[in-house]
Amino acid sequence: MNIVLLSGGSGKRLWPLSNDVRSKQFIKIFKTENGEYESMLQRVYRQICHVDHSAQITIATSKSQVSAIHNQLGEQIGISVEPCRKDTFPAIALATAYLHYIQGIGLDESVVVCPVDPYVEMDYFKYLKRLGELAQTEDVNLFLMGIEPSYPSEKYGYIIPEDQEDISWVKNFKEKPDMETARQYIKRGALWNSGVFAYKLRYVLDKVQKMLPFIDYDDLFSKYDELPRISFDYAVVEQEKKVKAVRFNGQWKDLGTWNTLTEAMDGPYFGDAILGGKCKNVNIVNELDVPVLCMGLSNVIVSASPEGILVSDKGESSYIKPYVENIQQQIMYAEKSWGSFRVLDVEEESLTIKVTLRPGNRMNYHSHKRRNEAWVILSGRGRTIVEGMEQQVKAGDVIAVEAGCRHTVIADTELKIMEVQLGREISVHDKQKYALDR
Amino acid sequence: MNIVLLSGGSGKRLWPLSNDVRSKQFIKIFKTENGEYESMLQRVYRQICHVDHSAQITIATSKSQVSAIHNQLGEQIGISVEPCRKDTFPAIALATAYLHYIQGIGLDESVVVCPVDPYVEMDYFKYLKRLGELAQTEDVNLFLMGIEPSYPSEKYGYIIPEDQEDISWVKNFKEKPDMETARQYIKRGALWNSGVFAYKLRYVLDKVQKMLPFIDYDDLFSKYDELPRISFDYAVVEQEKKVKAVRFNGQWKDLGTWNTLTEAMDGPYFGDAILGGKCKNVNIVNELDVPVLCMGLSNVIVSASPEGILVSDKGESSYIKPYVENIQQQIMYAEKSWGSFRVLDVEEESLTIKVTLRPGNRMNYHSHKRRNEAWVILSGRGRTIVEGMEQQVKAGDVIAVEAGCRHTVIADTELKIMEVQLGREISVHDKQKYALDR
Repeated sequence: MNIVLLSGGSGKRLWPLSNDVRSKQFIKIFKTENGEYESMLQRVYRQICHVDHSAQITIATSKSQVSAIHNQLGEQIGISVEPCRKDTFPAIALATAYLHYIQGIGLDESVVVCPVDPYVEMDYFKYLKRLGELAQTEDVNLFLMGIEPSYPSEKYGYIIPEDQEDISWVKNFKEKPDMETARQYIKRGALWNSGVFAYKLRYVLDKVQKMLPFIDYDDLFSKYDELPRISFDYAVVEQEKKVKAVRFNGQWKDLGTWNTLTEAMDGPYFGDAILGGKCKNVNIVNELDVPVLCMGLSNVIVSASPEGILVSDKGESSYIKPYVENIQQQIMYAEKSWGSFRVLDVEEESLTIKVTLRPGNRMNYHSHKRRNEAWVILSGRGRTIVEGMEQQVKAGDVIAVEAGCRHTVIADTELKIMEVQLGREISVHDKQKYALDR
Repeated sequence: MNIVLLSGGSGKRLWPLSNDVRSKQFIKIFKTENGEYESMLQRVYRQICHVDHSAQITIATSKSQVSAIHNQLGEQIGISVEPCRKDTFPAIALATAYLHYIQGIGLDESVVVCPVDPYVEMDYFKYLKRLGELAQTEDVNLFLMGIEPSYPSEKYGYIIPEDQEDISWVKNFKEKPDMETARQYIKRGALWNSGVFAYKLRYVLDKVQKMLPFIDYDDLFSKYDELPRISFDYAVVEQEKKVKAVRFNGQWKDLGTWNTLTEAMDGPYFGDAILGGKCKNVNIVNELDVPVLCMGLSNVIVSASPEGILVSDKGESSYIKPYVENIQQQIMYAEKSWGSFRVLDVEEESLTIKVTLRPGNRMNYHSHKRRNEAWVILSGRGRTIVEGMEQQVKAGDVIAVEAGCRHTVIADTELKIMEVQLGREISVHDKQKYALDR
């Protein structure tokens, strides 16, 4: 099957683990069978590959997530990058153009579009595969996957089907209803809208052409800003008559808030944590390397990361967004395509960061106008290039880089570096990149 | 007045702010009139000086606290250092010998001994001064200060006085009673034992001579290990017939647990903190430079420091000790006589610490057998001495020190340094000190 995973979201609801550059789908919090931890993205990717070895997977996302995706899934994964953040219709339109014009998938082939963050079992992906097959073979413009509701919820949109068969025509849609209305919908066989769509490429590309004529992927990419800021549900699904829904009654969790995320955790805590006496229904997610001790708490989530610390009543945690939007803060941790960095110390005229480069990777060859840098190699082996001069480096070596000097470091093994930036105007924008001729 | 402040305690009850090297009396958490923060020790010291400009203040403490005391009160403060940790009788005995043999205070002069950690107003110290005067002039061996109980408590020892006058003979003492007994004591005019004693030097030195004959301070110091591990209350107070108590009815708080400490806080939080919706009776004490966000909590204390994070129901927080005793952890922050250090990163073969030297101070001249070190100067000006060679340093300078090299750094202004230690066996014990001939 062709599958597009929509990887969006600024992830403020799962602060401090998620932030502007680190969305919830990248947090490694799910224990695998071999005892290691994987992220939502890695989990979904693994599940799709397990169900369909030949699946053609494309991630539709924004520029800010590209490094993290490469970091977690490798360099080979197909990524359709939005030039700017819009809504799901433009993102799906661009990804569909990417499949056809870049990856060469035929206009009559089908694609399944799916959010990257459902917490589900393998059977879910078998349904996705079937959805793709149905979209390919049947004379139906759009297939949706509806989730059999486990309780009346005000959080979801509802699909009202014509009947209660496994596959049925869709009568109409209802946006997030109040609790009583949700109850009535469910009585009439309504389904939660999971945000999964399957269609033939031609179907969506024709819609886009009508809205904004374009020649190919590059042309659509350059015009992206002109596409309306509108959801796929509103722009396409709700206007379509020939739409069918497949009923899914397996496990499905939307891990959008701390409350729902903790339900999917393997145990009460992750990381260095101590649950003291009289704690009931407490979850601790600790990414720091010092312990979190909880005593005498009930229904509380505690999460600590380099960005900050959240302590919240579980129910209350869904109202986190406005508080986090008011936090003005430097990014303290980020995953990049070449590895990761963590800010350890911020002073007025210095910034100390720990850089971890994965084997075989390197930073851009670059220089800074307004700061000096000092590197102390903590572990591993590699090579630095400063003003064209290459030098072997190993643990204990110290490299001083003056402002204006072009420099990079290449990791031969995993390489950990303490980088101290020094200057009056330290800024991420003070960076000139150069080609490295070698 | 002559006053001895007993500065003891490992401070596990106020973890993560206190630990083995940082007792609660050093935590800067009390807002002064000019908006700065001071510690219990600094507060008490300031209050004593305010009440009695000519007070002769001596701190009785263990070796591990000497650096922190100098850091907070300066180099001039008198400190009587116990060679090893015992109990209050040996500590008071040694401090009394220190006053007589080192500071030259006469045998018939009085001294007031007081714990360093009561949270009190100025009037308390006026009472202490009066206690000293009474001990000096009256034919009474021992004066105590009893606190008028504000409620029946199982936490304190009780002084049972002969009558309910302001100053009265003491009938006897009762150790921590149960609640019902405490109620009966209070009906009969009993007082909480505040741990304050006033006596003439001769009185205590005679007691010590009877127990363990000694010649002078140095002799007692060298025999300190032979003194019994016994409290002053048990060894002296409870055996004494000629003892009077002064009744104090002002504000007095024993800030031994998070619950009582938060009551003395100036506001609901200290440091970078956000109290979100529906929080009731929540206190946040955050020493980290990232925010703590609390939502929907009641009666909770949250404390975050470089050592760890505590989230506890306030009542439950008094039971913290056994949990903290089980935490095996490197010291992450410490105040030294020359400044402070904070551990920022721990790897298998490297340790990165941020060192802050106060102006005019320096580290010992020392070397390490099994590790190299790299210093990056973050801010300030000073001089390094490596193998006898002195060199001016400023922000941005990098100094590499090989294993075996003698080295130190002297701060001309406040000097901040990122120190990276590198080696297979990094240990605080790998340190040889040398005299610095200059």
